[in-house]
Amino acid sequence: MNATPDIAAARSRIESAYSPELTRTAGHRLVDLLADHIRKAEACEGVVLPWLPPPQNIARAGGTLDGGLGPQVAREQLVDRFIELVKTMLARGHNLHDPRYIGHQVPASVPMGGLFDAVGSITNQVMAIYDMGPWATAVEWALVERLGSLIGWIPGRFSGLVTHGGSLANLTALLTARNVSLEGVWERGLAGAARPPVLVVQADAHYSVARSAGVLGLGSEQVLRAGLDDRRRLDPNQLDEMLADLRAKNQPIVAVSACACATPIGAFDPLNDVADVCRRHEVWLHVDAAHGGSAAFSSRHRHLIDGLDRADSVVWDAHKMLFVPALCAFVLYRERAHKFETFRQDAPYLFDPAAPGLAEYDSGLRTVECTKRAAAFGLWGVWSLFGPQLFADMVDVTFDLGQTLYHKLAAAPDFEPLHEPQCNIVVFRHIPDSLRDASPDRLGRFQLELRRRLIESGEFYIVSTNLDGVGALRVTIINPLTRETHLDRLLDALREHGRALEPA
Amino acid sequence: MNATPDIAAARSRIESAYSPELTRTAGHRLVDLLADHIRKAEACEGVVLPWLPPPQNIARAGGTLDGGLGPQVAREQLVDRFIELVKTMLARGHNLHDPRYIGHQVPASVPMGGLFDAVGSITNQVMAIYDMGPWATAVEWALVERLGSLIGWIPGRFSGLVTHGGSLANLTALLTARNVSLEGVWERGLAGAARPPVLVVQADAHYSVARSAGVLGLGSEQVLRAGLDDRRRLDPNQLDEMLADLRAKNQPIVAVSACACATPIGAFDPLNDVADVCRRHEVWLHVDAAHGGSAAFSSRHRHLIDGLDRADSVVWDAHKMLFVPALCAFVLYRERAHKFETFRQDAPYLFDPAAPGLAEYDSGLRTVECTKRAAAFGLWGVWSLFGPQLFADMVDVTFDLGQTLYHKLAAAPDFEPLHEPQCNIVVFRHIPDSLRDASPDRLGRFQLELRRRLIESGEFYIVSTNLDGVGALRVTIINPLTRETHLDRLLDALREHGRALEPA
Repeated sequence: MNATPDIAAARSRIESAYSPELTRTAGHRLVDLLADHIRKAEACEGVVLPWLPPPQNIARAGGTLDGGLGPQVAREQLVDRFIELVKTMLARGHNLHDPRYIGHQVPASVPMGGLFDAVGSITNQVMAIYDMGPWATAVEWALVERLGSLIGWIPGRFSGLVTHGGSLANLTALLTARNVSLEGVWERGLAGAARPPVLVVQADAHYSVARSAGVLGLGSEQVLRAGLDDRRRLDPNQLDEMLADLRAKNQPIVAVSACACATPIGAFDPLNDVADVCRRHEVWLHVDAAHGGSAAFSSRHRHLIDGLDRADSVVWDAHKMLFVPALCAFVLYRERAHKFETFRQDAPYLFDPAAPGLAEYDSGLRTVECTKRAAAFGLWGVWSLFGPQLFADMVDVTFDLGQTLYHKLAAAPDFEPLHEPQCNIVVFRHIPDSLRDASPDRLGRFQLELRRRLIESGEFYIVSTNLDGVGALRVTIINPLTRETHLDRLLDALREHGRALEPA
Repeated sequence: MNATPDIAAARSRIESAYSPELTRTAGHRLVDLLADHIRKAEACEGVVLPWLPPPQNIARAGGTLDGGLGPQVAREQLVDRFIELVKTMLARGHNLHDPRYIGHQVPASVPMGGLFDAVGSITNQVMAIYDMGPWATAVEWALVERLGSLIGWIPGRFSGLVTHGGSLANLTALLTARNVSLEGVWERGLAGAARPPVLVVQADAHYSVARSAGVLGLGSEQVLRAGLDDRRRLDPNQLDEMLADLRAKNQPIVAVSACACATPIGAFDPLNDVADVCRRHEVWLHVDAAHGGSAAFSSRHRHLIDGLDRADSVVWDAHKMLFVPALCAFVLYRERAHKFETFRQDAPYLFDPAAPGLAEYDSGLRTVECTKRAAAFGLWGVWSLFGPQLFADMVDVTFDLGQTLYHKLAAAPDFEPLHEPQCNIVVFRHIPDSLRDASPDRLGRFQLELRRRLIESGEFYIVSTNLDGVGALRVTIINPLTRETHLDRLLDALREHGRALEPA
């Protein structure tokens, strides 16, 4: 205990770092920097993606760690350093708010959502047990109530939770399905299973669904891919045959995992028909509605998710089509009792026998996370500030623009849309004259090379996929500020980069 | 396509919601509100936890969702509504920055860390493939490099990743261990296992470790708890016997999971001895260093984690003892090749054959998350702004205060410390005269009731646990602004509330 002078000096440094006035001064400068940055991005000033190869970015991020000032230099110096660091972050980051960002299923989020989220970050709001995060818990419960009701479920009957992303949400729901479907599997594991259980998935399901079988000990070879119709939707007849065959062989079935919508082309499965089949064979129906669940807000599009209310579990990402910052994924169970089937344990230092009624509200009993950040503040804030019409608007505008793009592609002699879109995901190919007779393989490679050239130029951000083994271009119109003129310009940019790759 | 007027109106509403000037005006007011709030919390003005039962908080959070204004009202009105909402969040939230918050292993985070985090929230920075989040990826890589080096590993040999919390981090590392230890388990699952594999865990390990066995299909009954010494540290001799016995019976062993430190009393396992045993029996050594890994920054305390470099996998939470906002958990592998053993699949629309070198940098191949938020901006920013000395300071000050509290408890006739702390976790009981001869059960219940009274009063926030089945009080000194005077006041507050519960 003779180190008191050291400790006193350390305390003094800590007090400087925790100064509210430092936060205030830095915060005001940050707000102007961010508002300017978003204004420029929304106006298409600068590039979408400031491309640099990984080693260069990593070297810069690592080098910066050596430049710390110590908390006790003058406040102006600290704030200047802070601003310099933020400028680096903004200069090297991705500009999702640029309307030419039409890429992955991650939105240009409502900026005000980020401000609500920041309240949680700066005050470090978390949950695990109710009294660690009473307000974070309340916000989550209130939103679960609303989303479940929008699905069409009866208040009081369903339950749900928020977790960190759609992949973890799918894993959580399928873990619950596994535990409900296979008696005693939590305690005894799968090693005792007489017959290896299977997981039936829509053939185009997100990779996290099939991956769950590997994680949960079922085995990736136990994933059965159910056939699709000609619009890449789950075919209820093929599903019916598959389940009948499995039941006849006495093969345990963990769940059927359907999509609303599937990732590749955004196809929505016919959920009512799928639910009929699952009910007939008494199989848990999981629906990955990470992307499409938000159609529930739109009177124009909610027919796409008819039958979602018949699922046993649903995943719905607010950080996709509700346009809030990542990550905020909901897992919803039609029967509230299922929420306690995911895990079956206790943690004595967490759950309080002196207030047993609170366990109902302890998130750690239902989520993979123990400490969980207050991930739903962005959604709660945007909803409470602007009302739910904004969510309907964003669905309507982006889905509408998917149709617009489709018609443009169909009308252009050098583009080929590969499906009629049901939402804001559109897959297509650019086919310049010189490739009109190219092999599928050659044509597919051209799409991938073209996409890479385009995104590295910074002019647009789109993604790629392959359909039936052949490469294709894919866009998700998930910046609600994107307009028809940007799509016209996208086609021209693809033509220009195409000519450089493939001279006529 | 006849809905153009609707769509035009929707677009106009969206543009209002995305206005950078709304964000700017609201942002400036938010900064002042947050700076004032943190100043008050740091000065112990107001309560620590504003206690309300769940139904009341949920009703308020739900009711607010009905009050949205629509994005096209006057900006002042929107900003006023925004401020009103934030005031509710702050009034109902937990005040971790109050020095009387001495609770769970969630820190009063460095406020500037929240500002760095907010840059990611407002611009929605994420990763999954490199080109979706080049800077987020670079920051994560740079930090993995530093933390691995601090463990004592050789640069270039190890690898790692960031994930959403220590529980998910433990699950990820143990999934990797399972796949490496059990040939073909990813593909074939566990149903084919001749003998059910076991997971050996430190008897006091965090619940997420044992829970992993349930999730991964091993079965919770396949968790074997290795014995502890009299300071609740893993006993290498008992471990040696257990592993020898398992090997003799040809029982597959997934891993040994040790602690640095364990949650109940913060005991650090003797890692070098444990590593010797694991090496002898050729078993994967996982170390949950979520809390204690940060001792690596402190020359006074890094001896506690001697031998950590010999682990195969390590979990280290930056959102615990590096004092950044939740969640930012690191999974680190001594051998870099192991990072691709966690999952074994591809997602054609994610990973780009036109740039195969980039797959090394695609986080989605190594983490449960597909889309992952830029969770390391807070750590990167605090480190780059203040330098690493601040992390050493915060470890030193809080560990030192753990000792101080221990000595106070030992000197007080009506308190009993239950261990000599190795860090900032201290477990004890208050024993007023009237309970001096009470049964352990009665005494334990008193601690839990006392704790509940105390936290609901808002005067302090501490937690509870039970040791060997008997309730106890537990604090983690994880607000680096907490001082000795607050601890004196804590003991007095416990006495006062104790008298109300248990009149002399």
